[in-house]
Amino acid sequence: MVKVERGKSFHTHKGFVKFDDIIGKEWGCNLMSSLGFRFSVLKPILRDYIMKSARETQINYPKDIGLIVMFSGIGPGSVVVEAGTGTGAMTTALAHYVKPNGKVFSYDIREEFQRTAEKNLRRAGLIEFVELKSKDITVGIDENNVDSVILDLAIPWVVIPLAYSALKPSGTIVSFSPTIDQVVKAVEALHENGFIDIQTVECLMRGMQVERGKTRPDTLMTAHTGYITFARKALKL
Amino acid sequence: MVKVERGKSFHTHKGFVKFDDIIGKEWGCNLMSSLGFRFSVLKPILRDYIMKSARETQINYPKDIGLIVMFSGIGPGSVVVEAGTGTGAMTTALAHYVKPNGKVFSYDIREEFQRTAEKNLRRAGLIEFVELKSKDITVGIDENNVDSVILDLAIPWVVIPLAYSALKPSGTIVSFSPTIDQVVKAVEALHENGFIDIQTVECLMRGMQVERGKTRPDTLMTAHTGYITFARKALKL
Amino acid sequence: MVKVERGKSFHTHKGFVKFDDIIGKEWGCNLMSSLGFRFSVLKPILRDYIMKSARETQINYPKDIGLIVMFSGIGPGSVVVEAGTGTGAMTTALAHYVKPNGKVFSYDIREEFQRTAEKNLRRAGLIEFVELKSKDITVGIDENNVDSVILDLAIPWVVIPLAYSALKPSGTIVSFSPTIDQVVKAVEALHENGFIDIQTVECLMRGMQVERGKTRPDTLMTAHTGYITFARKALKL
Amino acid sequence: MVKVERGKSFHTHKGFVKFDDIIGKEWGCNLMSSLGFRFSVLKPILRDYIMKSARETQINYPKDIGLIVMFSGIGPGSVVVEAGTGTGAMTTALAHYVKPNGKVFSYDIREEFQRTAEKNLRRAGLIEFVELKSKDITVGIDENNVDSVILDLAIPWVVIPLAYSALKPSGTIVSFSPTIDQVVKAVEALHENGFIDIQTVECLMRGMQVERGKTRPDTLMTAHTGYITFARKALKL
Repeated sequence: MVKVERGKSFHTHKGFVKFDDIIGKEWGCNLMSSLGFRFSVLKPILRDYIMKSARETQINYPKDIGLIVMFSGIGPGSVVVEAGTGTGAMTTALAHYVKPNGKVFSYDIREEFQRTAEKNLRRAGLIEFVELKSKDITVGIDENNVDSVILDLAIPWVVIPLAYSALKPSGTIVSFSPTIDQVVKAVEALHENGFIDIQTVECLMRGMQVERGKTRPDTLMTAHTGYITFARKALKL
Repeated sequence: MVKVERGKSFHTHKGFVKFDDIIGKEWGCNLMSSLGFRFSVLKPILRDYIMKSARETQINYPKDIGLIVMFSGIGPGSVVVEAGTGTGAMTTALAHYVKPNGKVFSYDIREEFQRTAEKNLRRAGLIEFVELKSKDITVGIDENNVDSVILDLAIPWVVIPLAYSALKPSGTIVSFSPTIDQVVKAVEALHENGFIDIQTVECLMRGMQVERGKTRPDTLMTAHTGYITFARKALKL
Repeated sequence: MVKVERGKSFHTHKGFVKFDDIIGKEWGCNLMSSLGFRFSVLKPILRDYIMKSARETQINYPKDIGLIVMFSGIGPGSVVVEAGTGTGAMTTALAHYVKPNGKVFSYDIREEFQRTAEKNLRRAGLIEFVELKSKDITVGIDENNVDSVILDLAIPWVVIPLAYSALKPSGTIVSFSPTIDQVVKAVEALHENGFIDIQTVECLMRGMQVERGKTRPDTLMTAHTGYITFARKALKL
Repeated sequence: MVKVERGKSFHTHKGFVKFDDIIGKEWGCNLMSSLGFRFSVLKPILRDYIMKSARETQINYPKDIGLIVMFSGIGPGSVVVEAGTGTGAMTTALAHYVKPNGKVFSYDIREEFQRTAEKNLRRAGLIEFVELKSKDITVGIDENNVDSVILDLAIPWVVIPLAYSALKPSGTIVSFSPTIDQVVKAVEALHENGFIDIQTVECLMRGMQVERGKTRPDTLMTAHTGYITFARKALKL
């Protein structure tokens, strides 16, 4: 993703293109670089914003975000609590799907992440659907009656009792953790705090090289990012 | 998913519950079956509607739908063309994410599938965001300037030139196919018809059995549903 | 695998064949069943004996056995200690690869398993390369200076100090466990007992349906049997 | 793997060790490098020879070799034809398992590979069990009545009719190919040439990082090396 500015140009190892040649043209247009390579101008979509936001910090790949969003059940109008914000990759996706009338409350105590996340959300045009909270979620969740709580924390089990209180009955919780030990502790906390329908999965995305006569899976693969644990709030007996 | 009706009951191998005991209670409430098992009443979320719709016909598991939606870039307000409708599992997800101001145009010539899909979309409360079209998409797409085209067809390559015309510049196309040969033909058609940024992936979701001291991946796994191919429309040179 | 006996026949849902029609013919010969289906007579290979032995009890699939044998470094002439014997699937493979001048010492306290294993090893013609020991390996290993110790036990960590003593310096140990918790305990025991070069892997074998125009991975897959942990004995500092 | 020579030393980024300090000591012994790091002296096992041989050329990882050997059914005494030799990684494994009374006939027309393979087989002490043949296997196989044919060729289907003639009835063939198109052509050739029991699999080996409280799969994985196709020779009808 590149910001187009009058009078400037975009330099790559395949030559440069002048932004003035793009301005005023429509999305999908093509131009030739100084070295004769074709460049096409595409409008960023959610995935591009996510990848841009995710680049600097921990990895919630689109594959995981797609699954997290799907299993959370959220959609336009949903109210979601998220922690931690990180650089806002997950936040961007949540805001994208809850707009135009939903809201994401995203907690992170790390100021520098909050600033990066805000910049990323502004660039994606989604800042109005997010309230960034410089607060420690382990000491409390301000919101209640929310549709879903999304956790990407080192110690999710500490927040699970708070998430139970913040959620509306039948609401969903999703926790993303790289290690098995985090998953075990999170699942135990879910069981102990009134959650049911608990399920843990791992999502593996495998790239294919597609060319007639040479088709094969990619040699290398990101084999692990983290485990995704889902659950739903039942009222306590 | 069960429809609650006054005076009736729900029978399972763990005993039955009377719907009259549920009516008037809030989501997340619990009740005991005739055999003493706990039942909790959860509000259906998107995943539940998808699984319900998918049951009778071909399988686009939530894992694939999550990824397809993510990579398509659609969200609230998007205009999407889909084919085939099938029993409406994918249609349900698309409608869920484009509401309240987007629209899904879903093509299928098989009348019985269209009826099932309509029933499923009504149940999910999403019918108003979908126009079901009993038309053969291989002879033409009525819409134009659409944001995304989603194909789950035996012969996607036939529709790819039509999809190019229907899409707005920079729009996205996603094709789902079980076999490698379909993927190769689809990718060739994408190359030949002005699409760029072509990528094929496969999504594997692996379940985990999480219990302290006994944690392990599930023994069995649905190892293949289909390949997902993404691309974007660039203007022709 | 079927035992051919004069005067008898082999009945299947594709009809029966008479063993008298096979006796005296060479391996690879074909005959027609009573219902007109072709049957070919193949000589059993290691894999067939393994699958036959494995059928009744726990699963060490050929994929795992192939990797265990490879990483153990054993071959003709190797001396190997194994526990538990189970029904002898792994024992069969070990005996196959250490013959004609190696030996497998296989421990199991469960008498009924030892009897089954003996039957399976006799059928495979490998009993002379195995000493089945009805002993509890957790109380001691009789052998010393062995090339490799192969463990498929619920509590491998208990045997790891004994394995260290039994192994020749630079010898190998391989432990197979279904759960992550067993793996963690085994790896800790290996570190604490003078083993180095410790590595844990999981082997996934994915079947393909190969047919021009319809090629695709199998829908279902055995996604998990167990983790395989390797290590080597270094002398203590 | 390092060759120990009197008067020389082994330099690494963790300091150097003098070979004179090792000579006369037993396998598994430890010594300290000039920078104070522990080094242990391990005797090479098959896997080490394979990895050493495989380094310079195409990759038949131990995982694949373990499975190929297992499914080929070979063992001590087997007679095997292999093509191409490459740098001898697969040849090393085959020789290791057919010794002391079997033989591997390995074809490759590329002289420089044959020289490398010979060096690698000598180092592994296995050259006496291999006959390296600087011949084009596509024009003929000299041997007959062999137990197994192992192919790692760009065009395996050309050799399949020749392999049928070379094999004893009920013998096995294994073909390793990176692309799906090679697999389809090989499987078709197997069907057309009297082979039965045809099966194609892919083997994925996933590494685990095992540490109490931090256990997780490796982030990166070699997701694809090649497909393995097995079949057996039945007599023609």
